Amino acid sequence: MPEFRAGSAAQLTYLEELVDAGLLTRTGVHGVYARGPAFERVRLAFDGLVTRTADQESPEPLFFPPLLPREQLETNGYLGSFPHLAGTVFAFEGDEQAAAEQFELATRHEDWSAHQRMTEVVRAPAACYPLYPAVAERGPLPKGGLTLDTGDAYVFRREPSSDPSRMQIFHMREIVRVADRDTVIEWRSGWRSRTDELLRSLGLELQQDVASDPFFGRSGRLLAAQQREQELKWELLAPVSGEKPTAIASSNYHQDHFGHTYDIRTDSGELAHTGCMAFGEERVTLALFSAHGLDTRSWPREAREKLELDR
Amino acid sequence: MPEFRAGSAAQLTYLEELVDAGLLTRTGVHGVYARGPAFERVRLAFDGLVTRTADQESPEPLFFPPLLPREQLETNGYLGSFPHLAGTVFAFEGDEQAAAEQFELATRHEDWSAHQRMTEVVRAPAACYPLYPAVAERGPLPKGGLTLDTGDAYVFRREPSSDPSRMQIFHMREIVRVADRDTVIEWRSGWRSRTDELLRSLGLELQQDVASDPFFGRSGRLLAAQQREQELKWELLAPVSGEKPTAIASSNYHQDHFGHTYDIRTDSGELAHTGCMAFGEERVTLALFSAHGLDTRSWPREAREKLELDR
Repeated sequence: MPEFRAGSAAQLTYLEELVDAGLLTRTGVHGVYARGPAFERVRLAFDGLVTRTADQESPEPLFFPPLLPREQLETNGYLGSFPHLAGTVFAFEGDEQAAAEQFELATRHEDWSAHQRMTEVVRAPAACYPLYPAVAERGPLPKGGLTLDTGDAYVFRREPSSDPSRMQIFHMREIVRVADRDTVIEWRSGWRSRTDELLRSLGLELQQDVASDPFFGRSGRLLAAQQREQELKWELLAPVSGEKPTAIASSNYHQDHFGHTYDIRTDSGELAHTGCMAFGEERVTLALFSAHGLDTRSWPREAREKLELDR
Repeated sequence: MPEFRAGSAAQLTYLEELVDAGLLTRTGVHGVYARGPAFERVRLAFDGLVTRTADQESPEPLFFPPLLPREQLETNGYLGSFPHLAGTVFAFEGDEQAAAEQFELATRHEDWSAHQRMTEVVRAPAACYPLYPAVAERGPLPKGGLTLDTGDAYVFRREPSSDPSRMQIFHMREIVRVADRDTVIEWRSGWRSRTDELLRSLGLELQQDVASDPFFGRSGRLLAAQQREQELKWELLAPVSGEKPTAIASSNYHQDHFGHTYDIRTDSGELAHTGCMAFGEERVTLALFSAHGLDTRSWPREAREKLELDR
């Protein structure tokens, strides 16, 4: 079993309040919740605000479902860095007798995993992953590269927790730049201030920080240190519940990792660099309800207007 | 491996046209596609039309993510009827050495399934399934029962095919009634004509039919015959591609199956009955593009207006 991260007292209290207000509904599995209409309304309002903010760049939307070809996970390095977070999809293979045996075991809540075989799909661990091979398929990039938009994609992280902001399944919205090195670096720095402004305009108390991904194991600590040193990841954090603020948006610069993996080339034939700006939509929503209260009608006017909640 | 259903020549041609027009993008796995902006716009426009059509009943929205607690799949009978369609989520368990071994195997595209263990979640096979235990948690139903709305939920069906209308992952929108027997039966018959009218108003050539679910194996044939005999399922079919029309919406009457499974009681203490009206959003979208052409600007005025495509 993966390490279960128990929420702090403040986090458990906030979850209780969210459930009582009908904003989230428990499913019996930690980190898997149903969203009530008021929660969803704010999440989609924020999603719309990201759309308007990105509009000046006319990113190309490409909406991937929450499944990734297994072959991509085997190729893109994720299993080296985050084996503990990945989810794979298995399915039944067998005849009627095997199906009956599986059913028997399952009905008794005993182990029926022996009847399941790995399929050719896995859970999508990040919204931007499927974009890179799709872009590579098209041949060399157009001049100036590409800007893409994943829409509000479901992603999966295997980290059960009773902290409401640590979900196993949630929406990640990513704007992604695929271009030459300098273009990606400049684009990322533009989004750094744009995102800061965007989230502050919603009345969130923000911190910005250089960060690292949760790499697995001892060798992962080295990777995390390198990532920090090269400032390849930064996060925007806001209070949700508990003492420490929570990362609600982040940007990664992958250098030429995906360019190399899928042989994506710029119009001049160089390996493409990539970077992304990612918003954790449920976390932003949780931060907003935490900052302004559980009833959106009493939220500050500026936040309501920015989110177009009165339309 | 599950039976691969090869698409007909007409279906393969239609898929090719959809890909060339940027409406769908292939991922390398049959039945898993990315949706382009024009496809998504029509899908969401149809989703909005369902919302407006259901509005008179003020259904309660409850948005579940595309994961179901495994315990629910073990309890609700799905594995008895459709073991071949279910997907389960597995994840890594082990130390750093095991992770390194798994990574090695995966990088070589060899079998790394031995490092994966069954988790407590599975893929959601139908949008309405998680609603029933959530409703049961609340205690007896209010007078008159409940009407619920799943929103556009992702569901998974393990049936790889190159027919574009047979996807492994797609959006199912369900309006669900939980009440006493007579109320559910009457509600369902109301939706039968409402859905017929709704889809015809979009210019689709419709057929209505009593139908059965794709139950597994020989014993499944008996279940399918019973389902037909009792008219527990009906479908609305429209041309997509190929000779036979495709089911794009359906309604199931579960009698007291879920009431019994989760002990859902009406206000007078009877076991609740349930029924649902389900729309396959990608299929409706495919039927619309097939009927009216791949460019929405040349669609008939009535369909554009109904879908509010000009807003």
